[in-house]
Amino acid sequence: MPRVSLEHSEARRRQILAGARRCFSANGFHATSMQDLLNEIGLSAGAFYRYFSGKEELIRTIATETLADVTDSLAAHLQQHDAPLPELLASLPTAHIKTLHDDDQARLIVQIWTEAMRDDALSDVVRAGLGRINALLEAELSERRRAGELPADADPAAVARVIMAALQGFIVQRAAFKVDEPELFASGLSMLFRG
Amino acid sequence: MPRVSLEHSEARRRQILAGARRCFSANGFHATSMQDLLNEIGLSAGAFYRYFSGKEELIRTIATETLADVTDSLAAHLQQHDAPLPELLASLPTAHIKTLHDDDQARLIVQIWTEAMRDDALSDVVRAGLGRINALLEAELSERRRAGELPADADPAAVARVIMAALQGFIVQRAAFKVDEPELFASGLSMLFRG
Repeated sequence: MPRVSLEHSEARRRQILAGARRCFSANGFHATSMQDLLNEIGLSAGAFYRYFSGKEELIRTIATETLADVTDSLAAHLQQHDAPLPELLASLPTAHIKTLHDDDQARLIVQIWTEAMRDDALSDVVRAGLGRINALLEAELSERRRAGELPADADPAAVARVIMAALQGFIVQRAAFKVDEPELFASGLSMLFRG
Repeated sequence: MPRVSLEHSEARRRQILAGARRCFSANGFHATSMQDLLNEIGLSAGAFYRYFSGKEELIRTIATETLADVTDSLAAHLQQHDAPLPELLASLPTAHIKTLHDDDQARLIVQIWTEAMRDDALSDVVRAGLGRINALLEAELSERRRAGELPADADPAAVARVIMAALQGFIVQRAAFKVDEPELFASGLSMLFRG
């Protein structure tokens, strides 16, 4: 394919994914019809089907991209940060992690978790992403335990699970409960290992 | 209405709600059709519509009942428990709180949170439930701070928010990530506020 065509094709795919992301974030995967999608994207069905085989492929693509985005940015944040543990934890709710501060992205990730409950392939993808972050966080916590920042009998895997759960709950509270107080949340996180 | 009729009517409502709960928990509110519901419940459309006006009323009823159930049992657990804070926290994942140990109920509550993102009335209901538990937990944490179990500068409201978020994340991990290790989670929770 000539370069201009490739670029056109990629731009169209981006246009479709951006429109679909808006629809899914606002209304969920299953309450959004193909017609809703086409209206929001501004393409005919014929044009759409040149790029995606249907709603299922769109859902998988958006879910995979969104999960990679949150996993990558959380991993980068953890690797850059070497402040004491309470500060590291307190930095998370306001870090440059789109899923934690962008309402649309927070809503989308909750939709993706929910979809993973009925789609085993997607459940494998979300579990792999969580596993990657858990492993990073566990390694970080092991180091901090050696440095005396965690009790000597603390299990880094267990503590990592709890921290990840707290971040997931923060996203749920933001998206579903419309409770959005990152500073309050950061203050709570900073207390966890202060004793 | 004569008593036998009332009882019959209540039994039918229970039959409908139980079947709908199974459908919604397995497949979500919007990927479940009226026909799926009727098949699972084992009633004709005519019989169904004598009790509920449609899927929306079913969703609202089930959501309200489920949220009341989890809020009541969590409140009861918090009020009964007077062990030290790490033990109180560690007791939560294995407490008699159906949403925390029953897969179907965990899946249902995630569906309800997701539905609350597109239904403002439901969002109000879930937020009121969270507010009730937050207030209880905050009062409990204030007392424990006076007793020296929390740092003097810890904000009980902030810590309550983080604990609730961790429990919500535990439910998400169980339902969507199929990671179910209550003992590991309890061990992580017991490390909080140990210093």
